[in-house]
Amino acid sequence: MNGAQALIRTLVDARVDVCFSNPGTSEMHFVAALDQVPEMRGVLCLFEGVATGAADGYGRMTGRPASVLLHLGPGLANGLANLHNARRARTPIVTVVGDHAGYHKAYDSPLESDIDALAGTVSGWVRRSARSADIGDDAAAAVAAARTAPGQIATLVLPADTSWSAGAASAAPLPVEAPAAVPDDALAAVAAVLASGEPCALLVGGGATRTRGLVAASRVAAAAGAPLFCETFPARLERGAGRPVVERLPRAADQVTRRLAGVRHLVLVGVRSPVSFFAYPDQPSDLVPDGCQVHELGTVADDLPGALERLADLVGAPAEAVLQPAGRPELPTGELSLDSIGRILGALLPEGAIVVDEGVTSTRQMPGPTAGAPPHDWLTLTGGAIGQGLPVATGAAVAAPGRPVICLEGDGSAMYTVSALWTQAREGLDVTTLVFSNRSYRILEGELANVGAAASGPRARDLLELGRPELDFAAMATGMGVPATRARTAEDLIQQFRRALAEPGPHLIDVVLPGP
Amino acid sequence: MNGAQALIRTLVDARVDVCFSNPGTSEMHFVAALDQVPEMRGVLCLFEGVATGAADGYGRMTGRPASVLLHLGPGLANGLANLHNARRARTPIVTVVGDHAGYHKAYDSPLESDIDALAGTVSGWVRRSARSADIGDDAAAAVAAARTAPGQIATLVLPADTSWSAGAASAAPLPVEAPAAVPDDALAAVAAVLASGEPCALLVGGGATRTRGLVAASRVAAAAGAPLFCETFPARLERGAGRPVVERLPRAADQVTRRLAGVRHLVLVGVRSPVSFFAYPDQPSDLVPDGCQVHELGTVADDLPGALERLADLVGAPAEAVLQPAGRPELPTGELSLDSIGRILGALLPEGAIVVDEGVTSTRQMPGPTAGAPPHDWLTLTGGAIGQGLPVATGAAVAAPGRPVICLEGDGSAMYTVSALWTQAREGLDVTTLVFSNRSYRILEGELANVGAAASGPRARDLLELGRPELDFAAMATGMGVPATRARTAEDLIQQFRRALAEPGPHLIDVVLPGP
Repeated sequence: MNGAQALIRTLVDARVDVCFSNPGTSEMHFVAALDQVPEMRGVLCLFEGVATGAADGYGRMTGRPASVLLHLGPGLANGLANLHNARRARTPIVTVVGDHAGYHKAYDSPLESDIDALAGTVSGWVRRSARSADIGDDAAAAVAAARTAPGQIATLVLPADTSWSAGAASAAPLPVEAPAAVPDDALAAVAAVLASGEPCALLVGGGATRTRGLVAASRVAAAAGAPLFCETFPARLERGAGRPVVERLPRAADQVTRRLAGVRHLVLVGVRSPVSFFAYPDQPSDLVPDGCQVHELGTVADDLPGALERLADLVGAPAEAVLQPAGRPELPTGELSLDSIGRILGALLPEGAIVVDEGVTSTRQMPGPTAGAPPHDWLTLTGGAIGQGLPVATGAAVAAPGRPVICLEGDGSAMYTVSALWTQAREGLDVTTLVFSNRSYRILEGELANVGAAASGPRARDLLELGRPELDFAAMATGMGVPATRARTAEDLIQQFRRALAEPGPHLIDVVLPGP
Repeated sequence: MNGAQALIRTLVDARVDVCFSNPGTSEMHFVAALDQVPEMRGVLCLFEGVATGAADGYGRMTGRPASVLLHLGPGLANGLANLHNARRARTPIVTVVGDHAGYHKAYDSPLESDIDALAGTVSGWVRRSARSADIGDDAAAAVAAARTAPGQIATLVLPADTSWSAGAASAAPLPVEAPAAVPDDALAAVAAVLASGEPCALLVGGGATRTRGLVAASRVAAAAGAPLFCETFPARLERGAGRPVVERLPRAADQVTRRLAGVRHLVLVGVRSPVSFFAYPDQPSDLVPDGCQVHELGTVADDLPGALERLADLVGAPAEAVLQPAGRPELPTGELSLDSIGRILGALLPEGAIVVDEGVTSTRQMPGPTAGAPPHDWLTLTGGAIGQGLPVATGAAVAAPGRPVICLEGDGSAMYTVSALWTQAREGLDVTTLVFSNRSYRILEGELANVGAAASGPRARDLLELGRPELDFAAMATGMGVPATRARTAEDLIQQFRRALAEPGPHLIDVVLPGP
C-alpha cells in the first residue's frame, strides 16, 4: 500500500474517521485513497478555516479527534485562526498538511513556504513524515498526541512522495494515558482552604464544565458557601434544566472585578487565574482582587471530575448539587431586541440542542433566559479569533447527527467563514444559524471608548460600520444552498425559528436588530 | 502625540497613504488616529485575507506600499496566504500587526500567540516597536525596507501601549536606494553567449515585465534570434496592441519542456530557473533541458530594464522591439466555452484595463485572443495560494481609480475571499468580476491523473466537486451590494459585460460554463 492509504487506514483504526478537507495537488494521493479506505468520511470545505473550525466543533462534541487535510503552507495559514481557537479549547485534532515531495523543496516553487514555523504556533505536536515506511507509525503517534489529556493539536506534515510511495503499512492505535489523578495532599490543601471560614469562590474550566465535574463542583461550592463560576469562554458547557447552576465569569474586566470582590480564596479547577481579555490604559491585567489568594486544584491535564468528587467527600459536601429548575420565558411580541431574542431562544430551545455562540455583543444576555430550557450544550469562542461559529456548528452537526445545532452568529464574524453554509447544505446538516445583524463591529464601538480613544471622529467610526452597503445574509445563504429568511419582529423570528427547527437540514435566519 | 498618531503621520509623509484594515481592540488607537491624520485613507475589509490581497494589488499598480492593519496573531494568520502571494510578487507592503500591550503578554490572554513566528514566514523585515518614542523611526524604517528593491513585506508589530502612549514623534522618510546597476562584465558575458550562434532563449520576470524592460528584451531577443518568454506568473505584465510580444512560459511541466526543447543557453532576467510547480512521480522538478546552460543577467533586485537596454546596445540590437499589432477577435455567438469567452474578452477589453487573472484552468486560453486588444496590464496568481483575485482587483482599483479592473475568477478560488465584493461596493470601485462557474476544482481533476492517482473512484471525485449544491454567485454578490447577473450564452455575456463596463462601480457576472 502507498503512504496515503496507510495513513488513512491507521487513522480509521484509531477511530479518526472524519476528515474535513480542502485538498490540492500535493494531497491528491490522499484523496484517491479515500476510495480504498471507505470508512473515512471526507467532508469538503471551501476554505481551510472552515475545515479547522469544523474539526474543533467535532472534537468538542465527541472527545475524539477529527482529521483535517490542508494544502501546503498557505492552506495551513488559512486554517490557523480556528486552530488557535481549538488550541485554547484544548480540542484534539489531527492536522495533516500536505507538502511538496522532499526532493522538490529545494527548487522553491511558488507554493513553497515554512510550514513547520506555522504549525509550531498552534500545535502541541509536530512531525514531518519523511518516508512512506514511517507513515503508519507517525499517524498512530499523531492520534495519540492529539488525545493526550487534556487534548491538543497534532500536526503531521505529509510530503507528496511519502504519500505516493509504496512500502507503507498501517499501524495499530497507541494506548492513550488516562488523565492523572490529583494527589491527596493537593486535595487536602484545598479542602483546608474551603474550611477556613474565609470567603471562597470556585472557578472551573476545561473538562470540569461537563455535567459530572459540575455536579461535584456544585456540591463542593455548597459545602463551602462559595459561589461557583466557570470560565468566561468554555469549550463546552453542559447546562439547562436539571443540571448544576453555574455562572460564567463575565468578559468585561470591571464586571469580573465586581463579581470577585471580597473573595479571599479563589480555587481554580482546570482554568488559569482570571486576566483581562485585552490591556486597557491604567487598568490591571490581573483580575484577582487584592488580598485574594489563588489555589489550583490540579492542572487542566488531570482528572478534574474525579478530583472534585474526592474533594466533595473531603469537605463533607451534600449529596446533591444545586440544580437548575426547568422553566421557559414567555414568548415576546413586537420589536426585536437582544432581550426579546433571548426570551425566544429560551422558550423554543429544543432538548439536546448544541448552541454554538459567536454572537459577540449580541448574546451576552442569552444565558439568563435559556438557563431553564431543556438540557443543552453551549460552545463558545475560546480563543477570540472570530470566524469560528459557522465552522464549529458544522463540525458539531457532523459529530452529533441526532441533535439540533443552533448557531448564534454576529454579522461581522459570519463574514469570515461564511462558506461553511455550503458545507452544511452539502452534508444536509441540521444547523439553524441566527445572524444578528447590527450592521457594525459593535464590540469595537465599545472598545474604542474603553481604551480611552474617545476622541475619535467620523473616520474612525466609519471603520467599525458594516451597514454601507447592507449585508443581506439571506441572499448569501440562498446562494450557497441554505434556505434563509429575514426576521424583523419577534413574531417573524418565532415563526421562522420554529419552522427551521421542524425541518431537516440547515437554515439561516437574518435577525435584523433595530439601529442604535 | 501618541504612538498611533506618529505612526500614521510617518507613513503618510512617506507616501504610504492607504490602509487596508480589519482592526480589533488592540488597534483602536490607530483607528482613532485616522481622524487626526486625515491624509490616510482607511479601507475596511471584512476579512484579513482581503486586506492583504488588496495591498498586493495596490502595490503592484503603484510601485509604492500600502499599509495593512491586522489584529494580533489570528488576524495576521488570516492574511498570510495573500502575503505569501505578495512575497512571490515582490510587492512592497507595510504590514502593521497590533499586539497586546507589552506588559499584558505574560498573562497569556485568549488572543495571545506567536506573532513573530508567523510574520517571519512572509516578511523580509520584521520589527517590534517597543516604545512610543521609537515608533516614528520604526515606521520610517519599515517603509524603506518595504521599498528596498525589488520590494518586500515589512512587518511592524505594534503593541497597544506603544500605540496609546504619549511622547511619540513622526519621522521623516528614509532614502530608498535605487536598484543596483548590473556590472559590465556580467553584461559582456551574456552578450558573448547570445553571439555564440547556439540556440538561446530569454526568460524575463520581476521588474522586466513592464514595457521598458520588455522593449529592451524584445530587441535583444531579435538580435540573437532567440524566443522571448516571461515567467509563468508575472506580478504585472504590460501587454496589448503596440507593446512588445512576449510569451508566458506555460505552467504545465511537459509544455515547458516542449517550449524549451533545443535551447542551449537560457538567459534569465529577474527570474529563477524554471521548475515544476509541483512534483510528480517520475517527472523532473528542474525543467531546464539537458545540455542547456543557464545564465543569469543580474538579480531581481538589480536595475533590469537598464541592464537590458545596455545589453541591447552591446549586441547591436535593432532599435525597435517586435510589437503586437492591434486586432480584436470577432464576437462569438451561441454556447459559452473557454474559447468563446476569450474572444469576448479580446473583443471588448477596454483600453487601460487592469486584468486580474485567477481563472486557474479557465483562463489558460485567454492570452491569445486578448493579445491585440488595447494596452492593458495582466496581474497573475504569483504564489499559487488561491483566494487572491478578488482582493488584488480591489486593491488595484483603489490604486488606479481611472482604470477599469477586470477580475477573472474561478469559482473555487472566489469562495476563499468572496467578501472583497463588499469592499468593492462600499468604495464604489470600478471592478467587473467574471466568475467562471465550472462547478469543480477543475485543476485538481487533471492533477489527480497527473500524479498517477488515476485509480480514484467516486469518493475522491466527490471531494473535487463544487456543484452540490450549486453556488449562485449572483445571489451572493447581490447580498454584498454588488449588482450581478448570470450569463449562459455568448449573447448574455456580451450584453452583460458591455453594461458592466459602461456603468460605474462594481459588477459581477456569473459565467456558467457548460458541464463536462
